[in-house]
Amino acid sequence: MEKGIFYAVSTGAGNAELLTLQAIRVLKSCEVIFYPESEKNTIALASISKITEIDFSKKTLVPCKFSMTKDEDKRSAEYQKVASECEKYLLKGKSVAMLSIGDVSLYSTAARAATLIKKLGFEVIFIAGVNSFSAAACSALASLCERDEKLSIIPGDAYYIEEKLQSALKEEGTKVLMKMGRHLKEIISILNEEKLIQNATLVQNASLPEERIFRKTELMTLSKEDFENAYLSVLIVK
Amino acid sequence: MEKGIFYAVSTGAGNAELLTLQAIRVLKSCEVIFYPESEKNTIALASISKITEIDFSKKTLVPCKFSMTKDEDKRSAEYQKVASECEKYLLKGKSVAMLSIGDVSLYSTAARAATLIKKLGFEVIFIAGVNSFSAAACSALASLCERDEKLSIIPGDAYYIEEKLQSALKEEGTKVLMKMGRHLKEIISILNEEKLIQNATLVQNASLPEERIFRKTELMTLSKEDFENAYLSVLIVK
Repeated sequence: MEKGIFYAVSTGAGNAELLTLQAIRVLKSCEVIFYPESEKNTIALASISKITEIDFSKKTLVPCKFSMTKDEDKRSAEYQKVASECEKYLLKGKSVAMLSIGDVSLYSTAARAATLIKKLGFEVIFIAGVNSFSAAACSALASLCERDEKLSIIPGDAYYIEEKLQSALKEEGTKVLMKMGRHLKEIISILNEEKLIQNATLVQNASLPEERIFRKTELMTLSKEDFENAYLSVLIVK
Repeated sequence: MEKGIFYAVSTGAGNAELLTLQAIRVLKSCEVIFYPESEKNTIALASISKITEIDFSKKTLVPCKFSMTKDEDKRSAEYQKVASECEKYLLKGKSVAMLSIGDVSLYSTAARAATLIKKLGFEVIFIAGVNSFSAAACSALASLCERDEKLSIIPGDAYYIEEKLQSALKEEGTKVLMKMGRHLKEIISILNEEKLIQNATLVQNASLPEERIFRKTELMTLSKEDFENAYLSVLIVK
């Protein structure tokens, strides 16, 4: 029997309208859909659920959980487990789509799972999508870079150690901070200390109905709830 | 009469399948479509032309030319001219879509035109899309960044001065070089000198039928034609 194909499918920033024709074609063709599931993240599944062309009554939907642990052995075991689950379907000739918000090439669990599945001998295909920072910049009508400028995408939580973020902020070009879940408040304080607030725009839940945009000194007015909503925050610093 | 709306519409990396549902909805709704036209670049128009849902018999298609001049006064005049042309349609109540390959927030002429049109008092909306570097990474099955890593997007030609590119290549994280039109050959030589060829992947015409991928030492085998094809090249350096 012919083996199934593993597709890592980008679902875009959140709004179902940001799905590409390619993503929809692939999702229609796959019998099995793995989707990330956590307390905060069922966005990818919610997004594709709005596409009426996809007949979900014929799909097997499989949640996959990845903890936010920093323990690399534990993380590795989680990925191995998900890869093994995919393998069962692929061996039966069923193609699997694993959803990823944003674009699958950037900070995606699906890309890491794909590496394992490729090693198991299966065909793997990545379906490109709209990055959340692109959606955020578009919502804010912000041009990230003119033609001669550099763009740095910085994972905020990981760079919130010692003076690492401060150094990165001093580099040339535009900076986009993502993945600030735990430290959004502290990062905004750093922007203030570094006199960068006037160059900053924060977009939360870009492309979704609950989208909010804070510009310049509005960043100093965020509430406790806004900070708790940091998971889907993108901070643009020109 | 109600004024038209100006949409800067991202068409994705080139393949029509990378258009989003949102881009298609907006293109269907706009009577006038401005598209970039140059010797090398009719990709955006070619891409949307494949979408049968869009009735082109009812559209006014307007080419817009931006020269690659470094003379800022001349560039500024070109943008003013295009903005004035858009204004004529917008004042008649016709909405205008200006196409942009990749995502409109990154290195886009449409974003710059939008700034002028906004100043003229019109409503401006950005429609997000798939960046060419995302499509390139997906074609190469490359994960650009794991969760703690920085990504730098570097305009190759602009950074090919003195030791600027060498410095940027030494920074932490993954580097993506774009816009290497004139210096792809020299940039590959620098990668070789800096002992980075083993970490490099070049994708040309990502997502299009003529797509080509060169990995590691394959980069040393590019032909004269390959270098002339540098306009749609993305270089990923891990």
